[in-house]
Amino acid sequence: MKPEGKNIIGNVISGESRTNFYAINPATTKKIEPPFFEATSNEIDKAVKKASEAFQVYRNISGKMRAEFLVCIAEEITALDRALIEHCMEETGLPEARLLNERQRTVNQLNMFASYIKEGSWVDARIDFGDPERKPMPKPDVRSMQKALGPVGVFGSSNFPFAFSVAGGDTASALAAGCTVVVKAHPAHPGTSELVGHAILQAIKKCNMPDGTFSLLQGQSHEVGLGIVRHPLIKAIGFTGSFRGGKALFDEAGARPEPIPVYAEMGSTNPVFIFPGILQEKRNDIARDLAASVTLGVGQFCTNPGLVFMEKSEKTTEFTNTLSKHIADTPAGTMLTEGIRTNYQHGTNLLQTITGVDVLASGKSTDSGFTVSAHVFESDVKSFLTNPTLQEEIFGPSSLLISANNKNEILEAAKKLHGHLTATIHGTPEDLREYAELIHILEQKVGRLVINGYPTGVEVCDAMVHGGPFPATTDSRTTSVGTLAITRFTRPVCYQNFPEALLPNELKTDNPEQLWRLVNGKHVKQ
Amino acid sequence: MKPEGKNIIGNVISGESRTNFYAINPATTKKIEPPFFEATSNEIDKAVKKASEAFQVYRNISGKMRAEFLVCIAEEITALDRALIEHCMEETGLPEARLLNERQRTVNQLNMFASYIKEGSWVDARIDFGDPERKPMPKPDVRSMQKALGPVGVFGSSNFPFAFSVAGGDTASALAAGCTVVVKAHPAHPGTSELVGHAILQAIKKCNMPDGTFSLLQGQSHEVGLGIVRHPLIKAIGFTGSFRGGKALFDEAGARPEPIPVYAEMGSTNPVFIFPGILQEKRNDIARDLAASVTLGVGQFCTNPGLVFMEKSEKTTEFTNTLSKHIADTPAGTMLTEGIRTNYQHGTNLLQTITGVDVLASGKSTDSGFTVSAHVFESDVKSFLTNPTLQEEIFGPSSLLISANNKNEILEAAKKLHGHLTATIHGTPEDLREYAELIHILEQKVGRLVINGYPTGVEVCDAMVHGGPFPATTDSRTTSVGTLAITRFTRPVCYQNFPEALLPNELKTDNPEQLWRLVNGKHVKQ
Repeated sequence: MKPEGKNIIGNVISGESRTNFYAINPATTKKIEPPFFEATSNEIDKAVKKASEAFQVYRNISGKMRAEFLVCIAEEITALDRALIEHCMEETGLPEARLLNERQRTVNQLNMFASYIKEGSWVDARIDFGDPERKPMPKPDVRSMQKALGPVGVFGSSNFPFAFSVAGGDTASALAAGCTVVVKAHPAHPGTSELVGHAILQAIKKCNMPDGTFSLLQGQSHEVGLGIVRHPLIKAIGFTGSFRGGKALFDEAGARPEPIPVYAEMGSTNPVFIFPGILQEKRNDIARDLAASVTLGVGQFCTNPGLVFMEKSEKTTEFTNTLSKHIADTPAGTMLTEGIRTNYQHGTNLLQTITGVDVLASGKSTDSGFTVSAHVFESDVKSFLTNPTLQEEIFGPSSLLISANNKNEILEAAKKLHGHLTATIHGTPEDLREYAELIHILEQKVGRLVINGYPTGVEVCDAMVHGGPFPATTDSRTTSVGTLAITRFTRPVCYQNFPEALLPNELKTDNPEQLWRLVNGKHVKQ
Repeated sequence: MKPEGKNIIGNVISGESRTNFYAINPATTKKIEPPFFEATSNEIDKAVKKASEAFQVYRNISGKMRAEFLVCIAEEITALDRALIEHCMEETGLPEARLLNERQRTVNQLNMFASYIKEGSWVDARIDFGDPERKPMPKPDVRSMQKALGPVGVFGSSNFPFAFSVAGGDTASALAAGCTVVVKAHPAHPGTSELVGHAILQAIKKCNMPDGTFSLLQGQSHEVGLGIVRHPLIKAIGFTGSFRGGKALFDEAGARPEPIPVYAEMGSTNPVFIFPGILQEKRNDIARDLAASVTLGVGQFCTNPGLVFMEKSEKTTEFTNTLSKHIADTPAGTMLTEGIRTNYQHGTNLLQTITGVDVLASGKSTDSGFTVSAHVFESDVKSFLTNPTLQEEIFGPSSLLISANNKNEILEAAKKLHGHLTATIHGTPEDLREYAELIHILEQKVGRLVINGYPTGVEVCDAMVHGGPFPATTDSRTTSVGTLAITRFTRPVCYQNFPEALLPNELKTDNPEQLWRLVNGKHVKQ
């Protein structure tokens, strides 16, 4: 199977536009066939209207049937086999092993949401039985549960062509919640997007889901994305990408006549704190593993550890030397797009011009394709506190070491952090006792705290939080990874004095779906 | 106890301003002593900074101790006894029985949140145990739970001087969540607000809560409210009031360098649908009870039924006549403020000028105080569909009957509804079967659906949803009444590979708090 360069508008393949664009192979900088039709405003309108019509049916399809649909999508993606992996390698420059792994993660994620909605207790069913005899007023029968919001616009990310793209976490959680989805494909991998889009379309047909449950729009300009966000029938947005992109969509969505929620995961610098005791014990292991985390996937992860805080000591010098050596040995890596490479180079160049920031080491370089070298910089808490640029994300294989004179400086620096996705602490049990206050500070700064590990590698599970305070995301109350992501696309609806026959199954008195529910204040399944 | 006219800034009583204002007795239009000091920008800054410092302590106080604090607030409010009720009657013109009832509701609400956080399962604790042996990558130990957001700004409403004011649902749920609170008192009842503020202050002292857990700022200008919303240390806003006020705060909060969530409940027209069968059976009862719901509390409820849809028939004429008679017999009522009266008069006058809208009946009038007459209007679906004004809320004892020629017109009108807090359906079992589609439409329009009842009277319980799509609220994913309101003020925080000793109690393996948790995908308490 080969991509055709077309948009998928419900069950219709469409290419109205005269404006085309090409994906670029980042290893060769050559155009990849075929050209893709940029979605027109008419195509956007059609896709959203179909999503809205399909929603009237899809929202009432049972969780068990939606679960089968998600499993079927996973199967169809797997069935694309080599064609998908090979096309994706060409578009992204990512290695085969990584893409096989990411595809499996995407498949597992779809299956995880399928299990979650098949079990069904996520709807948070609540029942307070009425009491007509209560004085002075009869008590009404009140029941509520989470219901789907409506058509959702999803923006695929550049750096996860499967897991945060067409059938990634946003799409999976929105479809699981009962929402229909219009995806804006990332223009860096339009062919990969189209292939996955066709897999979803196959699943829609096999599972008899309504026409319009899913659409895929291609586009390189901002207009396609803005057209989706501005469409009055779109009820929420999922996005993974840059701060600039996410914030622009957030502002657009807030300025609509009817504002809608935007769940934008906009990346992060992911501060790491390495304490004196563990530095004594494991400085070489940590230096090696940190270098691996910084350079993994050419640093193109939003959980990339871009800031490292340590108290100055003899051991920090040894740590720094080991880390520098690992970074210096790092081969040049191919970035996903020319734009990402330009931004990385701009960011690392800018950092070098800042007083108080020094380059510790740079990795190897080559001239072929969109390649870059890894970097490690160093500075101190004083500079960090006075220059907000030091906290900004540089998307790519770069990290900045910040040395502190004492514990107090570490705490001051931590208090100055804005929102990040993660924070990581390396410490012995004694270190952790000594720095207990730091954990309380960091709990207010990030979505996920990691002890003696690395922030890259986000486990897909019930307890995961891939989110965090602004500017890491536009909505800290949510996560874009893990089952909790489903509630981004729902709201509670309450049914008062409803006859049994008209209640959703989830709220019927005899609990036909066998859910865990909150009944008269008790958590029960009976 | 008498109000002094001062601001409460943590444990300090403060009155810096030279600008004063007075509450007005709406029954006599006379000023009420004492004058109140408008909070200065310095006082706002102090209050928020104290709230932020107190938050560093308060966020770590156990749910059980926060529960005791909420119970203590309830006791202190009850202890204010006659002084509170009498001062509130003077400031609001609301009758004693209503205020006794509302005070009890407020006390019950505090106690409800106390029980909810004492039990504690609301934190949604999730544990996925690690597996170091997993291939190809070890599985980390991942745990998460809801944690408090930070200092919350709460705006008291005019129409519920207790239940949606200083110690109302927003404050109770924010304190329950572990947030500290800065309240902007509604200028229509500053003395009532101060008395309740002192009750909270007493409870803070008795329970040894940190200085700054609660502050109360007085103000008649917009500047006090805007100062709170713009303060960088404020992390969320709760508001109950007008669309104009709520939307202005929402826009301000979205324009901050760090946008924050605004939970504004901005009222609603609360459509009611009365079907042919039930009209045949119970038209006189429904007309009487609907008139009572429209005029309850001089119509000053955001759940007031302001739109009534019916299919035209002989019986609708009889229904309309009975309703008109009840409205015509309604005594003039005193509104809460001159501004609310002016808006009501403007709204009812405007409606009369619209082509296709007729006055059916007007209630009695008097000249004393801020009194108004009840109104009932009639129009048809055609006018409703072409004129958006017909859907706008008129805050007060007014309702608009919309007659339809057939079922299809009813469905068309329902599809045209924007977001409302509630929708109500009156029907026989046969009616409800016939109009099944309407329920699916209304589920997408409102937070609460009521069958064969009235929207006024919001039960405070686990299953209640007092919210709904825009413009009823600025965040349809939440409720401002009931225990689910607590999650407005929290976000999930994730702990990866944490040693037991550093985990919050809620996430420790042996479950010392005995919570219901999601452990490896299973709902368990063990």
